[in-house]
Amino acid sequence: MGERKIEMLLEQKKYRELREELIQMNPIDIEEILEELDIAIALMLFRMLPKNVAVDVFSYFPVDKQKEIVGCITDKELEYIIDELYFDDMIDLLEEMPANVVKKILLNSNQEERKRINQFLNYPQDSAGSLMTIEYVDLKKEMTVGEALAHIKETGLSKETVYTCYVTDSNRKLEGIVSLRKLVVNEENESIKNIMNRDVIYVNTHDDQETVAALFRKYGFIALPVVDKENRLTGIITVDDIMDVIDKENTEDFQKMAAMSPSEDEYLDTDVFSLAKHRIIWLLFLMISATFTQRIITRFEDVLQSTVLLASFIPMLMDTGGNAGSQSSTLVIRGLALGEVHPKDIGKVVWKEFRISIIVGIVLALVNFLRIYYIEKVNIYIALTVSVTLFFTVIASKVIGGILPIAAKKLKIDPAIMASPLITTIVDALSLTVYFTIASLILHI
Amino acid sequence: MGERKIEMLLEQKKYRELREELIQMNPIDIEEILEELDIAIALMLFRMLPKNVAVDVFSYFPVDKQKEIVGCITDKELEYIIDELYFDDMIDLLEEMPANVVKKILLNSNQEERKRINQFLNYPQDSAGSLMTIEYVDLKKEMTVGEALAHIKETGLSKETVYTCYVTDSNRKLEGIVSLRKLVVNEENESIKNIMNRDVIYVNTHDDQETVAALFRKYGFIALPVVDKENRLTGIITVDDIMDVIDKENTEDFQKMAAMSPSEDEYLDTDVFSLAKHRIIWLLFLMISATFTQRIITRFEDVLQSTVLLASFIPMLMDTGGNAGSQSSTLVIRGLALGEVHPKDIGKVVWKEFRISIIVGIVLALVNFLRIYYIEKVNIYIALTVSVTLFFTVIASKVIGGILPIAAKKLKIDPAIMASPLITTIVDALSLTVYFTIASLILHI
Repeated sequence: MGERKIEMLLEQKKYRELREELIQMNPIDIEEILEELDIAIALMLFRMLPKNVAVDVFSYFPVDKQKEIVGCITDKELEYIIDELYFDDMIDLLEEMPANVVKKILLNSNQEERKRINQFLNYPQDSAGSLMTIEYVDLKKEMTVGEALAHIKETGLSKETVYTCYVTDSNRKLEGIVSLRKLVVNEENESIKNIMNRDVIYVNTHDDQETVAALFRKYGFIALPVVDKENRLTGIITVDDIMDVIDKENTEDFQKMAAMSPSEDEYLDTDVFSLAKHRIIWLLFLMISATFTQRIITRFEDVLQSTVLLASFIPMLMDTGGNAGSQSSTLVIRGLALGEVHPKDIGKVVWKEFRISIIVGIVLALVNFLRIYYIEKVNIYIALTVSVTLFFTVIASKVIGGILPIAAKKLKIDPAIMASPLITTIVDALSLTVYFTIASLILHI
Repeated sequence: MGERKIEMLLEQKKYRELREELIQMNPIDIEEILEELDIAIALMLFRMLPKNVAVDVFSYFPVDKQKEIVGCITDKELEYIIDELYFDDMIDLLEEMPANVVKKILLNSNQEERKRINQFLNYPQDSAGSLMTIEYVDLKKEMTVGEALAHIKETGLSKETVYTCYVTDSNRKLEGIVSLRKLVVNEENESIKNIMNRDVIYVNTHDDQETVAALFRKYGFIALPVVDKENRLTGIITVDDIMDVIDKENTEDFQKMAAMSPSEDEYLDTDVFSLAKHRIIWLLFLMISATFTQRIITRFEDVLQSTVLLASFIPMLMDTGGNAGSQSSTLVIRGLALGEVHPKDIGKVVWKEFRISIIVGIVLALVNFLRIYYIEKVNIYIALTVSVTLFFTVIASKVIGGILPIAAKKLKIDPAIMASPLITTIVDALSLTVYFTIASLILHI
C-alpha cells in the first residue's frame, strides 16, 4: 500500500517521517525495504528504528548484510542485538562472523552462556541441534494451570513460541508437553500433571533435519522438542524454521537431479566462479562417461558407413530413451523423498514400470513408424529398425529409471543423483547397442 | 515402541486389549496401523474407538479408505463423523463421495449450513477457499482480554487453532487479529481494541494456493485469514495444510520438469494406465520435435558419409549440451518458484550464464581435446571440430537455459516446462548445426 509514499519520502529525504511509516510495518517488510536501499541510507534508517524493532529486522537480513551492519555499528549496539536475538538466530550469526567478533562476543558473556554457545556452534550442520532454539516455556508437573499461565504471562514475550509448553523434572528430563490451548480451556486449579501429554514425540540433537521435517509433515506440529543423549530437553524447533528446511531440501534435490553439487546460496547472490564450480565436475564426469557411446558407434562404423541415414535417428532415439527413463526415475526419487515409496517396494516398482513401458513403447513405436514410413518415406526396413529399437529402449529406460534410485537408497547414496543426466548417459549406451544390433539383423549388414 | 505388542495382540485376536493400546496413541499413528490391516479388521477396530478419536483417525485416512468406511458404517455413524470433522476435512470428503451420499448429507443439514457447504464446494481447486476452514476464534474489539479468554475457554476445543484470534465487526468485516500469546500476557481488563494488530495480512478466497504458501513462507505464520470480495472473514488457513501444499507444488514441478502431466496421486497407488497417460503426450511431442535433428543430420549426410567418425561424437555433444542447459534452467526455474529470481532479472541472468558458460565451456573443451587427441588418438582436425563445437554448445545451452524459463513466466506459461527435456531437444538441433558447420569449415568437406 504505502510503497509510493515510502519512495516519495525517500526522494524528499524526509527520514523522520519515513521512520514513522516504517515502524507501523511488519519487520519482514521493513527488512525488504531496507535491503533495496543504498547501504549508507539503509544503515541510517536501521539505527533510527526502536531497538526491539531493529533486532527483529536484523534477524531477517541475509548474512552478508548482517556482516556489513555489524561492521558499522558500535560495540554497544552489537551487544544489544546479540542479547535480544533468539538463540538460534544468534548462533547463525556467530557462525558467519569473523573470528575476532565472535571472540569479543564470547568475552562479553558469562561462563555458563559461553559454554552453551560453544556447544551450539558444534552441532553438525543440518542436524536438529543446529535448528533449535532455547527460548521455550518450561513448566513443572506440580504446577497448577493458574501458576503455569502466570509463568507464561511473565516470560512469554521473550519465548520463540508459547503455544507448546514443556514439562521437565529437576534433571531437565522431558516428562510431558501441554499446549497453551489446554491451559486456557482448563480450570485454574487443575494440575499440570493431569492434563499434560506424556506420549511426547521428540528428536535428538544429532538427528538429521530431514527426519525432523518428516515428523512435522506427519503430525502437523507447531514445535518439536529436542533432547540430548541423556534425554534432557535442550531446545525446540518451530514450524517456520522447518518450512525453510523443506524448501532447502527440495532445492538440493532439484540441483542434484540436474547434475549439480548442491548449494544453499541464492542464484542471483552467488558469484560466477562458485556457480561454475558447482556445475563443472558433474559435466566433466558425464562427458567422459560418453566415451562408451562413442566406442559403440565406432564399433559399428561399418553399419553406419553403409547406411548413413541411420545416424539421423540417433538423437531421437537417445532423447526419447532419456526422457522416458527420467520420468520413471523422477517419480521414484520423489516418492522416496516423501516416504511414499520404500526400498522394499522395488518389486512393485519394476513390475509397474514394465507394464507402463509396454503401453508407452507400443504407442511411441507405432506413431514413429507411421511418421517416418508414410510421411518421411523412409525405407521400410530402416523404419522397422528404428521403431523396434524405440520400443526396446523405452522398456529398458523405464525399468532402469525405476530401479536405480531405489538401488541408490539401499546403498545409502542419495537417490536424487539417479536422475535425468545419469539415466540418459546409461540409456544412450544401451539404446545405441540395441539400435545397431537390430540394424545388422534387419538390414543384413 | 509398542509395535511388537500390537502385532502380538493382533495375532492373538485380543481386540479389546488392542483398543486400549490404540487409544493411548496419536490418531495419526492409529490411522497408520489401521491402514496396514485387512479392511474387515480395520473397520471393526475403527468402530471400537471412542467417537471423538474415531473422527480424528477418519480424517487422516486417504480418500479411498474413507469411501470404503463410509460404505460400511451406519447413517448414524456417518452423521456423527460429518458433524465432528473440521469443515475443510468435511468438504474434502464430500468432494469425493458419490452423489447420493452427498445428497443425503445435504438433506440432513439445515438451510444455512447447506448454503455454506455448496459455497465451499464451488471454490476452485487450488484456491485459498478450497484450503480454508471455518473453525476460528471470532472476537469483538469491545471485549476485554478476560472476556476473550472466557470465550476461548468455552469454544476453544472445537477450533482448528486458537493461537490466532480474529476480530470482526457486526458485518463480519475483519478489523484485526490478536494472538493468544498477547491475550495471555496482558491484563484481564485490557481491551482487545488496544492490543489487536490492525495491519492484518490476509488472502482472498480465489487467490491461488501458491500465493498463500508464499505468504506463510515469508512471514512464518501459524494461520492466515481468508476474506471474500466484500472483505468479510470467511475462513482461515493453518500452517499444517500449507506444508501439504508446498509438497504438492514441488511434486508438480518435479513432474513437469521431467516432462509429465502433473498428478496428485501417490505413485504406488496409481494404476498403470493413468501413469502411462500422464507420460505419453510429452514423450510423443518431444519425439516428433526430434524431426528437426533428423533433418539436420540428413542435410549434412555428405559430411557424415565422408567422415563417419564424426557420428561417434554426436551423443557426447548432445548430452553435454543438454546437461549444461538443464543446470541453468533448473536454477532459474527454482529461483522463480521461490521468488528469488524475478522476470525483471532477465538481463542479470543472461550475463551471469554467459560468463559461467565461458568458464565451463573452456574447461570442458580443453579436457575433451586432450582426451580424444592424446588418448583416443583422433585426427587433430576432428578433435578440434569436436572441441570447438562443445565450447559453443555449452555457451548456447546455458544462455538458452537461463532465458527460456523467464520468457515462459513472462508469457504466463509455467516455467517448469522449460526444463531438461525441452531444453535438450532445442539444444540438440543447435549443437548439431554448429557441429556440421564447423566440420565443413575445418575439414573442408
